[in-house]
Amino acid sequence: MPATEESKVIDTILKRRSVREFTDSPVSTEDINSILNAGRWAPSGLNNQPWRFIVIREKDTIMQLSECTHYTKVVAAAPLLIAVYLDTENSYNHTKDVQAVGAAIQNMLLAVCELGLGAVWLGEILKQSEKVNSVLECPESFELMAVLAVGKPVLKERTSTRKGLEELVFEEKYGKVWEG
Amino acid sequence: MPATEESKVIDTILKRRSVREFTDSPVSTEDINSILNAGRWAPSGLNNQPWRFIVIREKDTIMQLSECTHYTKVVAAAPLLIAVYLDTENSYNHTKDVQAVGAAIQNMLLAVCELGLGAVWLGEILKQSEKVNSVLECPESFELMAVLAVGKPVLKERTSTRKGLEELVFEEKYGKVWEG
Repeated sequence: MPATEESKVIDTILKRRSVREFTDSPVSTEDINSILNAGRWAPSGLNNQPWRFIVIREKDTIMQLSECTHYTKVVAAAPLLIAVYLDTENSYNHTKDVQAVGAAIQNMLLAVCELGLGAVWLGEILKQSEKVNSVLECPESFELMAVLAVGKPVLKERTSTRKGLEELVFEEKYGKVWEG
Repeated sequence: MPATEESKVIDTILKRRSVREFTDSPVSTEDINSILNAGRWAPSGLNNQPWRFIVIREKDTIMQLSECTHYTKVVAAAPLLIAVYLDTENSYNHTKDVQAVGAAIQNMLLAVCELGLGAVWLGEILKQSEKVNSVLECPESFELMAVLAVGKPVLKERTSTRKGLEELVFEEKYGKVWEG
């Protein structure tokens, strides 16, 4: 896929990488609004929009959350965290709602990338959801889905890999490998 | 958000709408590959890539699947279906894997949009997952997540709405509404 203007969306999807090292630059409120708007425009079943977000920039809160994960250094060094929740009181089907939250997260990660920022999607922190909810004073109806650590990326090459389509895709029915 | 080249990704995220009416034009194999590549480059926990896809273009199969949902006409009129599965044999955490599948679906919907195509994310069809799996000859380890109906959109205005950020976002802790 060439990096033309015509394919900027697909290009961003293919080039986005997890960023775990951030400079000291803060993220502007304007950029945070752009990221949140990208998240809220995800699709959801019956358009029920089950996602909720907590924007965290205070150093003290960030440090407390950094103690809720093995990735302490990544979280502690991020100027911005976005805690992503499923509001179970506004849920109609857990599986579909969790998918919708995944779609909202991906929108935010792509927006981050386009804004020249970087982010990592932290899932391991879910092991300490109760502690996170306690720090953020969330009600029990809020189910933690992920925490995004966001900031200006330290410049370095970031690579990743994916399985080939022949491992993932079938043609017409299960069993016949997609040949594209 | 102005529609500049600089914000094409965010712009596409905000402008994407569900498309339920398709022309008779087929979707090219090249475009299908672009869509699938967008899907496979989604992030997933431990990069486990739990998504699997079945590309369906044969009219007979499409008609059989159209009988598995209330949205018979939408499915029957689509030149392309992509059935999206979670491969439970490659799952490490169901909630995180379902989120990852949601991210992959969103990537595909955004790619569809950039390619000048349209799609609708069908979730209601999950009610008849067993029938869908039977038509597509899937093993029990394949958990149906969604079916995407894809095609060239019939031109019409499509609108949608979302809750405002003030209904979705808190600042620092739960309870303090985000003022942006």
